[in-house]
Amino acid sequence: MNDIEQVMQNALDAFNSYKTLSPAKRAQFLYETAKAIEEARETLVPIAHEESNLPLARLNGELTRTTNQIKMFARLLEEGSWVEAAIDTADKDRTPPKPDTRKMLLPVGPVVVFGASNFPFAFSTAGGDTASALASGSSVVIKGHSAHAKTSEKVFEAMQKAVQRAGVHPFTVQHVLGSGSTVGKALVLHPFTSGVGFTGSFNGGRALWEYANQREQPIPVFAEMSSINPVIFFDGTLQQNAPSLAKTYAASITLGMGQFCTNPGLLIAVQSEALDKFLTHLGKEIEQVLPQKMLHSGIHSSYNKGLNQVLAQKGIEKVGESAQQPGEDEAFPTVAKVKAGIFLENPHFHEEVFGPYSLAVCCTGKEELKKVLKQLKGQLTTTVMATDEDIAANGDIIDLQTNMAGRIILNDVPTGVEVCASMVHGGPYPATTDARFTSVGTTAIKRWVRPVCFQGFKDGMLPEALKNGNPLKIWRIVNNEWTNSAIGQ
Amino acid sequence: MNDIEQVMQNALDAFNSYKTLSPAKRAQFLYETAKAIEEARETLVPIAHEESNLPLARLNGELTRTTNQIKMFARLLEEGSWVEAAIDTADKDRTPPKPDTRKMLLPVGPVVVFGASNFPFAFSTAGGDTASALASGSSVVIKGHSAHAKTSEKVFEAMQKAVQRAGVHPFTVQHVLGSGSTVGKALVLHPFTSGVGFTGSFNGGRALWEYANQREQPIPVFAEMSSINPVIFFDGTLQQNAPSLAKTYAASITLGMGQFCTNPGLLIAVQSEALDKFLTHLGKEIEQVLPQKMLHSGIHSSYNKGLNQVLAQKGIEKVGESAQQPGEDEAFPTVAKVKAGIFLENPHFHEEVFGPYSLAVCCTGKEELKKVLKQLKGQLTTTVMATDEDIAANGDIIDLQTNMAGRIILNDVPTGVEVCASMVHGGPYPATTDARFTSVGTTAIKRWVRPVCFQGFKDGMLPEALKNGNPLKIWRIVNNEWTNSAIGQ
Repeated sequence: MNDIEQVMQNALDAFNSYKTLSPAKRAQFLYETAKAIEEARETLVPIAHEESNLPLARLNGELTRTTNQIKMFARLLEEGSWVEAAIDTADKDRTPPKPDTRKMLLPVGPVVVFGASNFPFAFSTAGGDTASALASGSSVVIKGHSAHAKTSEKVFEAMQKAVQRAGVHPFTVQHVLGSGSTVGKALVLHPFTSGVGFTGSFNGGRALWEYANQREQPIPVFAEMSSINPVIFFDGTLQQNAPSLAKTYAASITLGMGQFCTNPGLLIAVQSEALDKFLTHLGKEIEQVLPQKMLHSGIHSSYNKGLNQVLAQKGIEKVGESAQQPGEDEAFPTVAKVKAGIFLENPHFHEEVFGPYSLAVCCTGKEELKKVLKQLKGQLTTTVMATDEDIAANGDIIDLQTNMAGRIILNDVPTGVEVCASMVHGGPYPATTDARFTSVGTTAIKRWVRPVCFQGFKDGMLPEALKNGNPLKIWRIVNNEWTNSAIGQ
Repeated sequence: MNDIEQVMQNALDAFNSYKTLSPAKRAQFLYETAKAIEEARETLVPIAHEESNLPLARLNGELTRTTNQIKMFARLLEEGSWVEAAIDTADKDRTPPKPDTRKMLLPVGPVVVFGASNFPFAFSTAGGDTASALASGSSVVIKGHSAHAKTSEKVFEAMQKAVQRAGVHPFTVQHVLGSGSTVGKALVLHPFTSGVGFTGSFNGGRALWEYANQREQPIPVFAEMSSINPVIFFDGTLQQNAPSLAKTYAASITLGMGQFCTNPGLLIAVQSEALDKFLTHLGKEIEQVLPQKMLHSGIHSSYNKGLNQVLAQKGIEKVGESAQQPGEDEAFPTVAKVKAGIFLENPHFHEEVFGPYSLAVCCTGKEELKKVLKQLKGQLTTTVMATDEDIAANGDIIDLQTNMAGRIILNDVPTGVEVCASMVHGGPYPATTDARFTSVGTTAIKRWVRPVCFQGFKDGMLPEALKNGNPLKIWRIVNNEWTNSAIGQ
């Protein structure tokens, strides 16, 4: 029913208009977008609750996070230095004469954003991918997620109000629904599409990446896919804090019924009395967690299938499970353990089981722990639970962890992703398709741009960011010096 | 004969040592590398001349450029801000408490660099790819080009001296020879390889990119491949400068026998008397260019094949060719023209013919010129030859050009790539496999790194670039402000 050809022609037309707007004008559009979504809060949250089974409080918080993200990108545009302006002025006296060259980041073209099932607001229609793409100067085609199609349509309605109020091109954002394997595929394959944002399953992200690479002109796909977020517990900290660590981790494992990309799915430690004590406490904590409905029945049946598969493997032992049996579409919180020797030999244990499940891997010693780490694939996060003495004695392990993930966390839980300039929500494959970028935080904007160098242009012909007078007052590299001053003053 | 397994194990061992060195120590190694190559100049240049047929003066200049590039990266390390450090400090009073997060770029692992036939020094063994990778903290495995294998071995010998003098890990750089389809393929497929640099043909670059995407963990391939570097001549400038433009462009088209990635292979203009006059002048200039030996007989036979193929197409007319017949392995400088209507319908005309050849496309008007531009693929460069009035009247054309290439040049030639912070030597596919990066200039270092976020780490545990005291005195984004100050002072 969606005429993809028309949608993409509209997106290109909108891009050619929208990209010419000043950063201030794009910022105004983003502020209007945040405002319109905030105005629709009372409509949006109940619909999202109905569609996703997520609690109202969580959805209210997520909506606030969403509008805060949009405003963060507006402020980034107002500050303006994100374009990485670099200027090398001419030197006519050099042999050969040195030309004037000036570089900045420019948007690449229409972007396609796929809504994510687990964040109906923050990683969907007007979520971080859309906000960062609009900030960059790209037009956006949103492929709404079928699990919360009504929410997506209503968020899009709010965005349309912002389009009108800000007076930007009417097709700056467009919204389509349909299956990923038909509509989604057609959007990725369309020659006008210049970039793709996705958060979801490995199979879904990998398929989009393959479509993008089959194109005559391959395009970047930023798919955030699969991560089990290994946590290392060192002995020093287990000896000091086993009960409180167990409480903290039981909460993190089951937060939002485990439906977070950064859910701690793997707990790794060297066998010890302290570890046994910690696992006993963890099991008791998990017993107290009530089953809750998952996002939709598809995710619920995937969870049950994955959980049953892993629990059927040889050598696995249950550490604890919810004391209450689950109802329809409810997830059953579960923690299990396995010896590292068995873990190392069975790749089933390495796979993500998306939901309130975590596996403790018990190692005979540090060398085996390192073997476990080396066998793991790329991750979004990895965590170190350690005393200062543990850290000092285990630099080699911290180094392995740093190599593995986009974010390394000390003495905290991986769930909870701060939206800020220093965040990296990304990581080596298969955590994402491109470890060089983040989907959360201000630098998420860098996914939708490429550098262009202007050589020999007169001042009046240059983009504002590159003019001598530095009218945007941004930080630039001018003749190898960082400065926010004008040139020749 | 090369034991790839052993080479890559060495490369990983070296990486794990080399990446821990301070930026100052890495800079010292780069300075030693530049010095050792400079010391070997008298040996290197004659061997490269013998292998490549390139003139001694050109090779001397290229060697100087190569050592200057290496020193540029050493200075970049000394300055240090390239790591994109961003810090958001903790706020314990916020609900929920805001963690301390700090991000910087870290090297990804061993890098494989393929030598390029057309730059035995600047894009080969110790060229820009190698220098930028070593600067980033990566170890490098160089696959020397068979067309200048001795030069490559001798440059590597010089690098080995620098390895010893600087006292870095003995396998920080390694050198292998062999065919691209066996040794090259094995290097790209090896699981320890984390990135690939290549400059050469479309088929070669595309093959490496496909190998990289077949891996269990795909890796980035930065292949700079194919570009015909379209130049638009506007009527105003043709009317004023036809004879001098013809002289300038004849020189650019035949510089180094056209064996530059930025060779202007396509000249586009609206039909006019001034254009006829320009082409007549250009033809006469080309007649005076003497045939010279190409880099090797393979490139020469490719040039002849490509030239004969394109000259056999319907509607092509010769504008001029060298007055002297070529000798063995010598290229025959040639310029031809074709009507835009014919050009648009025959994709043969759009292909790169690597050598001293250029095709003029004569358009019936501005609309047809825009059609030609829209049909072209991604380019490294595009050039505008125009008066101020031409520029003012043709913003739509400049915009199409900006969309198409990594660098847009006003009133100059595309040959000659300045090595500086604002250079973009890259561009949309098929010019390169990744338009977001450049292979020339300081930002070429960004190809070999990824961001990592450290959350909740104590000051003493953090990398130098992220410590409160800012011991490296670099520019950082601290709580959304650009500053080179320490935190809390």
